[in-house]
Amino acid sequence: MTTALKAPPLGPILDDIVRSHRPQREAGSVPANIPFLGAVPFDRFGIAVATASGEVFSSGDAEVPFSIQSISKVFTLAMALQGDRSGSLWSRVLREPSGTSFNSLVQLEVEHGIPRNPFINAGALVVTDHLMKETPDAATRLLRFLATQAASTGAYIDEAAAAGELAGSSRNLALAHFLKDFGNLQQTAESVVENYVRQCSIMMTCVELARAGLFLARNGQGTHGTVVSASEAKRIGSIMLTCGMYDAAGEFAYRVGLPGKSGVGGGILVIVPGVCAICVWSPRLDAKGNSLAGTAALADLSDLTGWSVF
Amino acid sequence: MTTALKAPPLGPILDDIVRSHRPQREAGSVPANIPFLGAVPFDRFGIAVATASGEVFSSGDAEVPFSIQSISKVFTLAMALQGDRSGSLWSRVLREPSGTSFNSLVQLEVEHGIPRNPFINAGALVVTDHLMKETPDAATRLLRFLATQAASTGAYIDEAAAAGELAGSSRNLALAHFLKDFGNLQQTAESVVENYVRQCSIMMTCVELARAGLFLARNGQGTHGTVVSASEAKRIGSIMLTCGMYDAAGEFAYRVGLPGKSGVGGGILVIVPGVCAICVWSPRLDAKGNSLAGTAALADLSDLTGWSVF
Amino acid sequence: MTTALKAPPLGPILDDIVRSHRPQREAGSVPANIPFLGAVPFDRFGIAVATASGEVFSSGDAEVPFSIQSISKVFTLAMALQGDRSGSLWSRVLREPSGTSFNSLVQLEVEHGIPRNPFINAGALVVTDHLMKETPDAATRLLRFLATQAASTGAYIDEAAAAGELAGSSRNLALAHFLKDFGNLQQTAESVVENYVRQCSIMMTCVELARAGLFLARNGQGTHGTVVSASEAKRIGSIMLTCGMYDAAGEFAYRVGLPGKSGVGGGILVIVPGVCAICVWSPRLDAKGNSLAGTAALADLSDLTGWSVF
Amino acid sequence: MTTALKAPPLGPILDDIVRSHRPQREAGSVPANIPFLGAVPFDRFGIAVATASGEVFSSGDAEVPFSIQSISKVFTLAMALQGDRSGSLWSRVLREPSGTSFNSLVQLEVEHGIPRNPFINAGALVVTDHLMKETPDAATRLLRFLATQAASTGAYIDEAAAAGELAGSSRNLALAHFLKDFGNLQQTAESVVENYVRQCSIMMTCVELARAGLFLARNGQGTHGTVVSASEAKRIGSIMLTCGMYDAAGEFAYRVGLPGKSGVGGGILVIVPGVCAICVWSPRLDAKGNSLAGTAALADLSDLTGWSVF
Repeated sequence: MTTALKAPPLGPILDDIVRSHRPQREAGSVPANIPFLGAVPFDRFGIAVATASGEVFSSGDAEVPFSIQSISKVFTLAMALQGDRSGSLWSRVLREPSGTSFNSLVQLEVEHGIPRNPFINAGALVVTDHLMKETPDAATRLLRFLATQAASTGAYIDEAAAAGELAGSSRNLALAHFLKDFGNLQQTAESVVENYVRQCSIMMTCVELARAGLFLARNGQGTHGTVVSASEAKRIGSIMLTCGMYDAAGEFAYRVGLPGKSGVGGGILVIVPGVCAICVWSPRLDAKGNSLAGTAALADLSDLTGWSVF
Repeated sequence: MTTALKAPPLGPILDDIVRSHRPQREAGSVPANIPFLGAVPFDRFGIAVATASGEVFSSGDAEVPFSIQSISKVFTLAMALQGDRSGSLWSRVLREPSGTSFNSLVQLEVEHGIPRNPFINAGALVVTDHLMKETPDAATRLLRFLATQAASTGAYIDEAAAAGELAGSSRNLALAHFLKDFGNLQQTAESVVENYVRQCSIMMTCVELARAGLFLARNGQGTHGTVVSASEAKRIGSIMLTCGMYDAAGEFAYRVGLPGKSGVGGGILVIVPGVCAICVWSPRLDAKGNSLAGTAALADLSDLTGWSVF
Repeated sequence: MTTALKAPPLGPILDDIVRSHRPQREAGSVPANIPFLGAVPFDRFGIAVATASGEVFSSGDAEVPFSIQSISKVFTLAMALQGDRSGSLWSRVLREPSGTSFNSLVQLEVEHGIPRNPFINAGALVVTDHLMKETPDAATRLLRFLATQAASTGAYIDEAAAAGELAGSSRNLALAHFLKDFGNLQQTAESVVENYVRQCSIMMTCVELARAGLFLARNGQGTHGTVVSASEAKRIGSIMLTCGMYDAAGEFAYRVGLPGKSGVGGGILVIVPGVCAICVWSPRLDAKGNSLAGTAALADLSDLTGWSVF
Repeated sequence: MTTALKAPPLGPILDDIVRSHRPQREAGSVPANIPFLGAVPFDRFGIAVATASGEVFSSGDAEVPFSIQSISKVFTLAMALQGDRSGSLWSRVLREPSGTSFNSLVQLEVEHGIPRNPFINAGALVVTDHLMKETPDAATRLLRFLATQAASTGAYIDEAAAAGELAGSSRNLALAHFLKDFGNLQQTAESVVENYVRQCSIMMTCVELARAGLFLARNGQGTHGTVVSASEAKRIGSIMLTCGMYDAAGEFAYRVGLPGKSGVGGGILVIVPGVCAICVWSPRLDAKGNSLAGTAALADLSDLTGWSVF
């Protein structure tokens, strides 16, 4: 159980975390299919904590923009649930952990085109397709949403990076056409993948992302009022905990004990319900695709603060 | 975030839960391969809450013994971790959600005999094998452990039921021999399955199970001192949340938001960290093998009390 | 063992076959994703035998053009092997049966983008990609090849049908993008699928197809000289026998005992090594996608003539 | 097409084959789970051809007994078909290639306990179970059958080897219990596996096996009359061609072009319909579990004699 935040000396703690976890030498990997991510210096490390009471603490490269990649999936899911009074999204995507990453296409085939959850790529494509019904340029809509929540105009879509990433998106195109074959995509496969890649190519800083995710720690209440209902906020948290870290969701729940969502840009967004939103960033990845230094830092932070949902 | 337990009128709430959820007509299914479970009247429904402060509230058939089945896996895991200073158990079983139930044998084959988590049958067989190294009669050891934690001598192994269940254990024998083939079983396949089935055939009441599980809500502190460390208690909770409800773990986390473990006898054990342990029981199951009325009751209880880890 | 063709009264036998097997009522199915195929009257039935000595026997609707669909794969494979002195095709596609049809994408994922054989769709896409290196319009090249071998100018690409089929080609596009992701496609996914669909949309008659396939029964010797070497002809036959009938290859080998290749247009091309090539056509399909009446007719013909490789 | 046997100088050809293919140095592997097979000297190589006209040619270690292992499956299948007037065997096992060996348990799970063909282990266990209905000691019945067909009393069950192999039969026990779980096994899992292993442990020479298999080349006519009908003989041949060489059936059909069945003891039985039965033996295996030198020798022999069904 998370203990209340009794004025912990968060500033010094974050400085310590940066000192301990900023990579001293090149370790971990970068995504083979997204070349520009490999160009980020390996020793980048930033962390920011936005508290429910409105404060922001940060340390390291917390003001350096990075590619949010799959962290975008948390926000597109929230946006899709906002406009989904009838719950129709949940007839198109499940809320179950996906098991081994090996299963990506296997699972889709066995379960007839219904992705296991909104955070695997197939599920995120369905969410994007869902958003595009109302707003064809779903990526720009997401950018505005993030700017509003982060109370910052700094975020932007790196269109050149998106174009580069799109050129290496054969697997996502395969998934999209496969979803189409099962009747679970309404827009064209190409347009959905393009929007999806542009969402992933949004550039933000740790401070901005921590702020943008704060509504999930405050029962759905964002910077300017309700983003999602309290119960939807809880539910997004449960999906983050069970599905947010690719095939290491169980390991992350075990070590950190908090709902999180990682991206292959090296960022991880973590929610401490009722307390704060945390964003950590360091570009090199472990074998499961999660930030190597970021994951270790979060385990440490959880131990130091006692933050855990268990 | 779980709010503190401000003297909620738990007695009346549980009575209401029983009134609303006790099955009025036959619905749901019983396990085809364990005939005696089908003989339990469909309208049985009990609930008990054991609080961290030592109180026990209950309603309905909370004092009627039922077959704990897979709920036993929570306790064998705790026992295995007690004696596993070196962490050797975690080289034999993972801590990740298992994806589709369809994957049971597929997963084992793809991942070379390492079960995805300790709560799928293959994983529980490995845990039992681990316990048998020290105590060949692991089932009797489990019974003593449960009696101590529940502060009750009522629990017993239904040996006749176990013998019947053993006769229909072909799939578990297949799993055990398969684990053996991968070198991940030290005892004979037959002896491990026999112990496993006898553990599942333990008969307990809701009140006893809620009491027995209380250490998981109290940082590992049981009736007579430390059962597991605070960090192990948290970790068992994280495994329950991500893997405790068969292939409906995500759905349960989404609806109830609490770590839980179900059994095909119709029981579900749920932990509210820092607050209480809950046991609900009703014998008829949904398509995923979880108690139909029990799951609905827990969703209601979570809404009424605000208990949730998210 | 095939007995030599001792002037069997082939004409009357084929007439009998047509009388026995022409569908009297609507049974079987048509492919859901290729609408125009469903418009063909269910009672069409034709058969033609082109003998090694140069005679052609036929009966029923043997002169009615139909959509050759996957029968095209036999000929694109032959064309690819013609120009493949170095054997480079076989580093991109295997020669093994594919097991369950369920495996289509599973197999590709597990075996890292190398299709099991040239007759499953993924394999045929690789063969088409291979041909396109030299001839971007591989479909037109195939059409010319078939016209030459059949000594007929009747064959044509039904471009309207191809366009319609292309619109429903999401699964083939998924396969092509997936192959691309594994680096096993050189042309664009879209261009390969377009060529593939146009190859499938070639319209030919039973008589033309039997003639066109005759080189496979004559050690590779076609109408105007060598098409493939004797050893390549034998090898194509072995691939037809083990992989030619979708997931019913074993059943077909068991019932008919001859190398065959079917298409969802209802045609089946069969080779009797040293003796003849047979083409049968009837549009309605069994559950595995092979012509219902055509398969039954071939089993009968094999019994009546003693033709079998076993 | 197989050409008639025009007094080819078979003796000298076989001597050449032995000279070319007898291993000069240790290469290939031995089965990890059957230790005694590894003790056979790597340079053993024998070959025998039993012709339809009654002659036997042989060379090399053709009179040295070896463990027939899975070659036994051809003969148990023939025995099961003998007594299976109603075709009930084919409701319990399919006749389709099995795809990747990886699929062994996957396939069984996906297809609800019906093995893909009688030559994968699961299928052979079903065949053995089928035989045991009439003859509990199916292995001894097989031995008598083989002795009769081979016209030799030399064959014997190596009971010590069988006992050793049984101790390492966890995977077969897993398969048997899994079949039992699906209701596709009538005897106990243990007794079926024991019989199966004893069948595999029969010791025979190349000469004996070639003679024993001759009925398959002679339309089902064995040493003392009809063994199976002509049509059953053809059908067993078709199953050998499509499923006889583990996951290399397609490759073998492509290179050799004849129905064959291999065993991990290093033997391969091949049928030339109408002409002869061939047995080659050399103990070291390729990556697919087929005799390394044996497969190469058969490809050579097929080229030298023109024997091929295509």
